Amino acid sequence: MDREAQDPDWDESADVVVVGAGYAGVAAAIEARRAGASVLVLEKMRAGGGNSIISGGLMAAAGTPLQQRLGVQDSADLMFEDMLRAGLGLNHRGLARTVAERSAGTLQWTIDELGMSYLEKLEHLGGHAVPRTHVMPNYTGMALMKKLLACARGLGVPIRTGAYLERLVRRGDGRVEGVRVRAGYVYPNAESGVPRTIAARRAVILATGGFAEDVAFRVAQDPRLTAGVETTNKRSTTAEGLREALRIGGLPVQLSWIQLGPWTSPDEKGESAAPSFADLAFEHGMIVHPETGRRLVNELADRKTLADALWETGRPCVCLTDARGLAKAAQPVDRALRKGIVRQFDSLGALAGAYGLPAEALAATVREYNRYVVAGCDPAFGKRIPAGAEPLTEPPYFGMRLRPKIHHTMGGVGINEGAQVLDLEARPIPGLYAAGEVTGGVHGACRLGSCAITECLIFGRIAGRQSAAESGA
Amino acid sequence: MDREAQDPDWDESADVVVVGAGYAGVAAAIEARRAGASVLVLEKMRAGGGNSIISGGLMAAAGTPLQQRLGVQDSADLMFEDMLRAGLGLNHRGLARTVAERSAGTLQWTIDELGMSYLEKLEHLGGHAVPRTHVMPNYTGMALMKKLLACARGLGVPIRTGAYLERLVRRGDGRVEGVRVRAGYVYPNAESGVPRTIAARRAVILATGGFAEDVAFRVAQDPRLTAGVETTNKRSTTAEGLREALRIGGLPVQLSWIQLGPWTSPDEKGESAAPSFADLAFEHGMIVHPETGRRLVNELADRKTLADALWETGRPCVCLTDARGLAKAAQPVDRALRKGIVRQFDSLGALAGAYGLPAEALAATVREYNRYVVAGCDPAFGKRIPAGAEPLTEPPYFGMRLRPKIHHTMGGVGINEGAQVLDLEARPIPGLYAAGEVTGGVHGACRLGSCAITECLIFGRIAGRQSAAESGA
Repeated sequence: MDREAQDPDWDESADVVVVGAGYAGVAAAIEARRAGASVLVLEKMRAGGGNSIISGGLMAAAGTPLQQRLGVQDSADLMFEDMLRAGLGLNHRGLARTVAERSAGTLQWTIDELGMSYLEKLEHLGGHAVPRTHVMPNYTGMALMKKLLACARGLGVPIRTGAYLERLVRRGDGRVEGVRVRAGYVYPNAESGVPRTIAARRAVILATGGFAEDVAFRVAQDPRLTAGVETTNKRSTTAEGLREALRIGGLPVQLSWIQLGPWTSPDEKGESAAPSFADLAFEHGMIVHPETGRRLVNELADRKTLADALWETGRPCVCLTDARGLAKAAQPVDRALRKGIVRQFDSLGALAGAYGLPAEALAATVREYNRYVVAGCDPAFGKRIPAGAEPLTEPPYFGMRLRPKIHHTMGGVGINEGAQVLDLEARPIPGLYAAGEVTGGVHGACRLGSCAITECLIFGRIAGRQSAAESGA
Repeated sequence: MDREAQDPDWDESADVVVVGAGYAGVAAAIEARRAGASVLVLEKMRAGGGNSIISGGLMAAAGTPLQQRLGVQDSADLMFEDMLRAGLGLNHRGLARTVAERSAGTLQWTIDELGMSYLEKLEHLGGHAVPRTHVMPNYTGMALMKKLLACARGLGVPIRTGAYLERLVRRGDGRVEGVRVRAGYVYPNAESGVPRTIAARRAVILATGGFAEDVAFRVAQDPRLTAGVETTNKRSTTAEGLREALRIGGLPVQLSWIQLGPWTSPDEKGESAAPSFADLAFEHGMIVHPETGRRLVNELADRKTLADALWETGRPCVCLTDARGLAKAAQPVDRALRKGIVRQFDSLGALAGAYGLPAEALAATVREYNRYVVAGCDPAFGKRIPAGAEPLTEPPYFGMRLRPKIHHTMGGVGINEGAQVLDLEARPIPGLYAAGEVTGGVHGACRLGSCAITECLIFGRIAGRQSAAESGA
């Protein structure tokens, strides 16, 4: 019987209460329901999907049938090693290994259980030893999100929208007993809605996402990221769920590792067409300072070094290449050209004029760089001159403005491999699970591209199954 | 009147309760007492001093009389900029600025009020734009610690040893009312002592230091730093105070930035003689992998890059230089030679033999490096070849084994410029202050050398004065 009838302290109850209706939360709800629990999903926005709905639909998985068909040798071990390298060794080993080992099975689950399909190709993203990034149709993760929501609804799981998490309810060192929300909340009005308490008979699952858009919280961890800094996230990507996990004694893990994408342009919202040209220009071209027209960094340094160097200039920098460079593009940059994010120029001087760069200084920078290319050695910044590199002498030239945007918050609350939230002594907090970007440790210092969907689905599903198996209150 | 007589909930009380008797805690106690508060200092060990007692006695300060006498132009602005550069821009600006601006006055305070003296010279440590590191006699901070303790005792402040912090007492979102300790605690026996509650009528000041030796806590933030990794700290440098601040709702700040010293050797305990030779060999020599005899990193990269590269080899690496390199030493390395930490060899082959390096590979590495020195360009790792660098061809050769050790934990609980501990919304927690290594934000990603004493004294004194001015319970 429903405990709400017995306990006047709560307005309602469910076996499992999931907070957040993105990939992790809805995957959790599906598994908890399938394991026999009554489940309620709470979502603060007017519709489910969260930040997941704007995903680019790229999902890393190792050892899949598609890889076999395309002749790609891969393994969970190899993916695990790539995650650790990207994460600068800070990844919580058990969590990263869980993602790598379950990646192929989870991708298959989206096909078999949700009816997802993938393009008959693989992307080879930076930092991955082999092509293992599976691509959803039209390069968007929206279809996956919709299928997850439809699956949950088909199982009878209510997705309660307009429900803003105010409190995780825990007495002392005891079990997490439920939540207090503002029901009827209308984003972003903090005063909207009315308090409502919901008991979780077995467990609460926190799947509230990252905190890229939470200025106060992110500034404490990285004071450079003040208001006005753009992100690639939805505006609703804030920290209230994470704060609650910490307030009741959750272990903070690696909160100060906030990923800035160096490949983003101020000339488009979020990130869409810019990254592929940026990758090309970093390899077969250069980045120059907008005032001096000089290079400022090894363009092939890691993401963090690049983003920090771009950041320090305080304004958009310019990356550029020439016609021979453009011919080396792995992906077409037509869209970026059409949208005017990447611009084409007949001469370096025209490029300089368009971006307000000092023309003579830019010409000198390019001449100097071309000497390094010929010599195969860059004494200025130690850039590894790529095989097949050619001097930048062949018009037309192509340029794009760059400005780092906040992309992903690696840190969060600590969990174990069973998705149980850990306390400050690294012991599980009874009755509380978490999955997805609200957790920390999976990615260490830096998330490898296309591993986020994989992580959300894997730990969401674990949290759902485990929470349903709790003996509860 | 003492509230303890009125309130049976507490075993005893004081206006201000300071937890930790290192630089920060005792400086706080002195100022609180001078401001008229009754003060009790709690220290878990058998004697005061904490980790501060093994300090190298180096104190950065900008704009001091000694700098003027020695003709060094410096300013608080310059020191602030250096702190920000070292901290990769992650420093909480207001905190770092407070340290820079009060550094000279605080140094003078140690002279005028404590009777400290300093050598008539300045060290120019890496990352500082000018020489501003003031040196205590015999390169030890023990005298300063003893003078602080004597000053506190002279003011009638009891230093209660064997008092282990178990709990900060806070009800809900209210004031921190006091502490629960284990009185009669004998380190490291967790079962020793008996519970005792102490009310803080005005405030508690947390000055419990860093967590370098707390394996469970540090591993959550940096999973590489498992048990057995050496530190330059005392074994008692653990996280119980920080955990308590977080448990009652304190803001975690940059916990995952843990400083590994790349200049440490496994052939001495902690760090003493190794760093000065390491600095020399990094500039005028090289670091080689113990198995391959090959270089592994730009030896002039930042501390973190260096330490990470050394770390990844999983074993001690070897740094080396030759006779001409040694002649460029800013500080004598006699002591390191005498102690056998640095060893001298007639030939490269002898050096290779002593350290188990492959002799031919080492010789090839040195030949290759010498070509880079002559060319003024290092295509392998992008090292900036220093002005005046000469090829390594002049015996004797000098070598030292390197292995990173944990040195400092930059992160901690968040504070504002008034040393008030912040909660998860960045609002002050009533009745709670903190100072020193238990706090986060002053140093950002990386603490600049010799700024720790400065920080401890400055925020300790602020915490003492502010807490004494609290209206309290």
